[in-house]
Amino acid sequence: MTFPAPLTGVVPPVCTPLTPDREVDVPSLLSLVDHLVAGGVHGLFLLGSTSEAAFLTDRGRRQVVETVVAHVGGQLPVLAGAIDMTTARVLDHVAAVTAAGAQAVVVTAPFYAPTHPAEIARHYRRVAAGSPVPVIAYDIPVSVPGRLPAELVLELAADGVLAGLKDSSGDLGGFREVVAGVGARAGTTGFSVLTGSELIVDAALAVGADGAVPGLANVDPHGYVRLYRLARAGDWDAARAEQERLCALFGLTRAGDPVRMGAGSSALGAFKAALYLRGVIGCPVTAEPQIPLSAGEIKRVEAFLAAAGLV
Amino acid sequence: MTFPAPLTGVVPPVCTPLTPDREVDVPSLLSLVDHLVAGGVHGLFLLGSTSEAAFLTDRGRRQVVETVVAHVGGQLPVLAGAIDMTTARVLDHVAAVTAAGAQAVVVTAPFYAPTHPAEIARHYRRVAAGSPVPVIAYDIPVSVPGRLPAELVLELAADGVLAGLKDSSGDLGGFREVVAGVGARAGTTGFSVLTGSELIVDAALAVGADGAVPGLANVDPHGYVRLYRLARAGDWDAARAEQERLCALFGLTRAGDPVRMGAGSSALGAFKAALYLRGVIGCPVTAEPQIPLSAGEIKRVEAFLAAAGLV
Amino acid sequence: MTFPAPLTGVVPPVCTPLTPDREVDVPSLLSLVDHLVAGGVHGLFLLGSTSEAAFLTDRGRRQVVETVVAHVGGQLPVLAGAIDMTTARVLDHVAAVTAAGAQAVVVTAPFYAPTHPAEIARHYRRVAAGSPVPVIAYDIPVSVPGRLPAELVLELAADGVLAGLKDSSGDLGGFREVVAGVGARAGTTGFSVLTGSELIVDAALAVGADGAVPGLANVDPHGYVRLYRLARAGDWDAARAEQERLCALFGLTRAGDPVRMGAGSSALGAFKAALYLRGVIGCPVTAEPQIPLSAGEIKRVEAFLAAAGLV
Amino acid sequence: MTFPAPLTGVVPPVCTPLTPDREVDVPSLLSLVDHLVAGGVHGLFLLGSTSEAAFLTDRGRRQVVETVVAHVGGQLPVLAGAIDMTTARVLDHVAAVTAAGAQAVVVTAPFYAPTHPAEIARHYRRVAAGSPVPVIAYDIPVSVPGRLPAELVLELAADGVLAGLKDSSGDLGGFREVVAGVGARAGTTGFSVLTGSELIVDAALAVGADGAVPGLANVDPHGYVRLYRLARAGDWDAARAEQERLCALFGLTRAGDPVRMGAGSSALGAFKAALYLRGVIGCPVTAEPQIPLSAGEIKRVEAFLAAAGLV
Repeated sequence: MTFPAPLTGVVPPVCTPLTPDREVDVPSLLSLVDHLVAGGVHGLFLLGSTSEAAFLTDRGRRQVVETVVAHVGGQLPVLAGAIDMTTARVLDHVAAVTAAGAQAVVVTAPFYAPTHPAEIARHYRRVAAGSPVPVIAYDIPVSVPGRLPAELVLELAADGVLAGLKDSSGDLGGFREVVAGVGARAGTTGFSVLTGSELIVDAALAVGADGAVPGLANVDPHGYVRLYRLARAGDWDAARAEQERLCALFGLTRAGDPVRMGAGSSALGAFKAALYLRGVIGCPVTAEPQIPLSAGEIKRVEAFLAAAGLV
Repeated sequence: MTFPAPLTGVVPPVCTPLTPDREVDVPSLLSLVDHLVAGGVHGLFLLGSTSEAAFLTDRGRRQVVETVVAHVGGQLPVLAGAIDMTTARVLDHVAAVTAAGAQAVVVTAPFYAPTHPAEIARHYRRVAAGSPVPVIAYDIPVSVPGRLPAELVLELAADGVLAGLKDSSGDLGGFREVVAGVGARAGTTGFSVLTGSELIVDAALAVGADGAVPGLANVDPHGYVRLYRLARAGDWDAARAEQERLCALFGLTRAGDPVRMGAGSSALGAFKAALYLRGVIGCPVTAEPQIPLSAGEIKRVEAFLAAAGLV
Repeated sequence: MTFPAPLTGVVPPVCTPLTPDREVDVPSLLSLVDHLVAGGVHGLFLLGSTSEAAFLTDRGRRQVVETVVAHVGGQLPVLAGAIDMTTARVLDHVAAVTAAGAQAVVVTAPFYAPTHPAEIARHYRRVAAGSPVPVIAYDIPVSVPGRLPAELVLELAADGVLAGLKDSSGDLGGFREVVAGVGARAGTTGFSVLTGSELIVDAALAVGADGAVPGLANVDPHGYVRLYRLARAGDWDAARAEQERLCALFGLTRAGDPVRMGAGSSALGAFKAALYLRGVIGCPVTAEPQIPLSAGEIKRVEAFLAAAGLV
Repeated sequence: MTFPAPLTGVVPPVCTPLTPDREVDVPSLLSLVDHLVAGGVHGLFLLGSTSEAAFLTDRGRRQVVETVVAHVGGQLPVLAGAIDMTTARVLDHVAAVTAAGAQAVVVTAPFYAPTHPAEIARHYRRVAAGSPVPVIAYDIPVSVPGRLPAELVLELAADGVLAGLKDSSGDLGGFREVVAGVGARAGTTGFSVLTGSELIVDAALAVGADGAVPGLANVDPHGYVRLYRLARAGDWDAARAEQERLCALFGLTRAGDPVRMGAGSSALGAFKAALYLRGVIGCPVTAEPQIPLSAGEIKRVEAFLAAAGLV
């Protein structure tokens, strides 16, 4: 299949189920993919932050892409993160995930090494030159300090370097600036602007987003697909109501005690606990060195599922 | 050879010379190692930030360690960075660099993924459990957000998890807190406290540091070794004069125009330009996506070398 | 008049026109207030960030409130910032601005002094206990580090400490969490949730905001009032089109050269240049130590006004 | 008396004792000043961060300066902070504290308002032009985001704008850069470089500091004066031993539970508790909205005093 331009719809960043030994749990991964496809999602984003890409070994990453690509067999677009610190390392991941069948790659600005906008531009130009598939920029300030300036994204879009943006900044004003630039600028047709937020998908679609990449869609893909369809149909009141239900459900990400663990351990642990409680995956464990949720914290996740009508 | 406990002296983070095609330049790397050994350094730290570890592919990293270990053949301790985002990925690097002959590994707290002190502790415990060689913690806030709390470092030292600390924070007060804890606490004998600063090596030694890991020692190893010896001899006035000469030389790291590039491109580009101008390496190029120094900027590096009596 | 609960509509943070000597320019201030009232705004917020409250002396602050209160004479609600570092200093400003006639005060978390959520809560409780008028919390992370946690805002709302929130964080997801909590929680009826963004007023109203406090409404109050009315009438497409026109106009805030000045000098200088070019105020000068826009930069502001149909 | 150029020695940032009603406790303030003078300090810095300047009303600030100036009557230099957000407000404080008798003012870069180096330079030039007494720059990144670049400080020193620097950044490398520039640059003779750290006074003096402004000197002025004299006499080993005793004592700043309060509440609360326990002041209360230490936390302060031989 040809990769869509622009990519649209709900494209969940797919969780990576693990065995108690922290190996990729292939049967659970397939079950999760089936759950997402049954939910009607429009694409799959593997090896994103929600997928614990930062925690997986290269072998684990490759296994995830090969497994999912073999399973979905061209039914829907499969994107993969190529998450690493700088250009040459990212290009190695691009080679690996495209060899494994990914149809687009998702790439952040350099991190660990301090950066300057000129270095970010150079990074994306080199990565795109070396990638056999479209490159989507990933703006995730919680992990990669700084922001991708809208002006830079649009320049790289116009030059054919970038095929899209996944914006996980939560800043709808900046997001909108990119949306406004697309189309207004020669060469940007087909560029896809995607929100990475769970909480403002309705608003992002209303201002012109092409789609959404919400981690919570692992837990409730049907909800996000419903929300997307309502928004596309212009039924904004119903979209808002669906979004508010999902916002309430998102409270599960705070199940973990902040005195005992970081926000990431809590959120990723809660997504996996929810998938386990819903019977989608076989084990709720997260990768090291994340702190596991306690039994009491998992009970809190269960209460959120119940309130959202999911158990 | 047995890895020293504590590790002491001047242990430069060895630059990684590259060819114009951004491959590891093996002859230049050997020449640089010879230059450092001739300068009297007490150990070699490969694959640190100054080594552009964040920019090198896994293949390049392995090549660096194998090349240097084969060349120095047990004459002096060789440490290697195992720089990656989280536990399992770090352990893969630990396996690779120790297979290639590194006698200790240098490991940061997790990055990209948000962290909590409990997750940092868990990370180091898991890494140490899986490492065949001593683990040295690397505190480098410019790359890894947050700080390694002194209390946490000391707890991990007392438990035999950590064999040392390379502190690149520039915060001598916090550094001193670790120094004070070592020895005062059971089980910390042999723990090595190393400063990563170029500018306060005399002060760090005066407050009890075991040694230093200054990037600028690539350019002037003799200077840092002289400084170390003067300090160990208690000749603090002469040590201070030597340090001040090196502080002036450090001005070369600002050769690059900050409107055009980031601080990293400027500093690493200047180190390599200086090594090239001194005839140590064959090509001053840095890894992508760093911005190269212009001819005029390289002239500025040359002026610093001249002022320091190095050309 | 009774202060409305909740406060709704467009409540511009009123610019403070200055004379070339950096005194409050009273005739220009009155002209600006007339311009805003003629634009149909629903309230006036004096001494906010856009008002250069951080730059005005206590005398200047008092003069602003007295001048405006005397002029509008109860026609519409007048709020005033009580912007200072900590509790006792804020209470002195509360006393001054309410003596001058302000009907509500707008207060940030403590700054300069490092803070903890428990200290923020204590601060608001003490300020509210000492204020004769309603207290509105001001969340402006660009000036006051950290965020006001939604949970804390809602707790203080439920306890009658806070009458509203002006959220200038740009984070619509967090904003929405406050909106969802109001009404859902006993004691929060009448609490006003206001966005401080210029760029996402339509989206904020769609998710349930009571109103907006956009700095750009100084330049184009009619536009924001139109946008508000369209949103209230449920005509979201027209509201979005109006918002997009205003987003384009907001580009004037980048008129100043970032190599030469900070973002604040550029934005506040551009607002005042626009008001000057529109004939509303007599002098476009900003307070010290802000860098003035050059003639060429003011031309850029003029081009934005022309594109928006405002000259 | 003429204000010394350079100012040298131990210049404590004087705590501001408060009554249970959070008014300035004049008898306790006089007692504290007597305690410091008896300890041999070389100057007094009023209205600094340790003095809770950010928490005091204008009336309280004035009262502090008047009280102390009247009491010490020219025996030793008295500096006062003029801590506020921007130029005009700072100038009002400069006028107030110099009218009350301060012989120099201590001024930060602008805060709350975002800043640019050009705006910081403009700020100091305007403040100095309007100040009847010398201006000392105050670099305190924990309160004022960013850093004062060494180059900027030296430029302002050479132009006669600044008479000194109080560096509370903890970054000895940057501190040293300022020290090196003073004297090397025309017009900087008499410029005073002071460290604001409690923990590295020996090291700062060794690299060329003129003096120190340690908050902990409220608790143990004799210790810091002894340290200063030992360093000036070149007895670095004894100076280091004294500094290490004071580093251990500094542990009292962590007496407060970090789950319950911020670092500031803990540190300032502990200084005052120590002064109370030593019988110097009548009440250990801190200003609102700081969280008071519990009885158990005060016991921890007492243990630190005992260990340091101070009770």
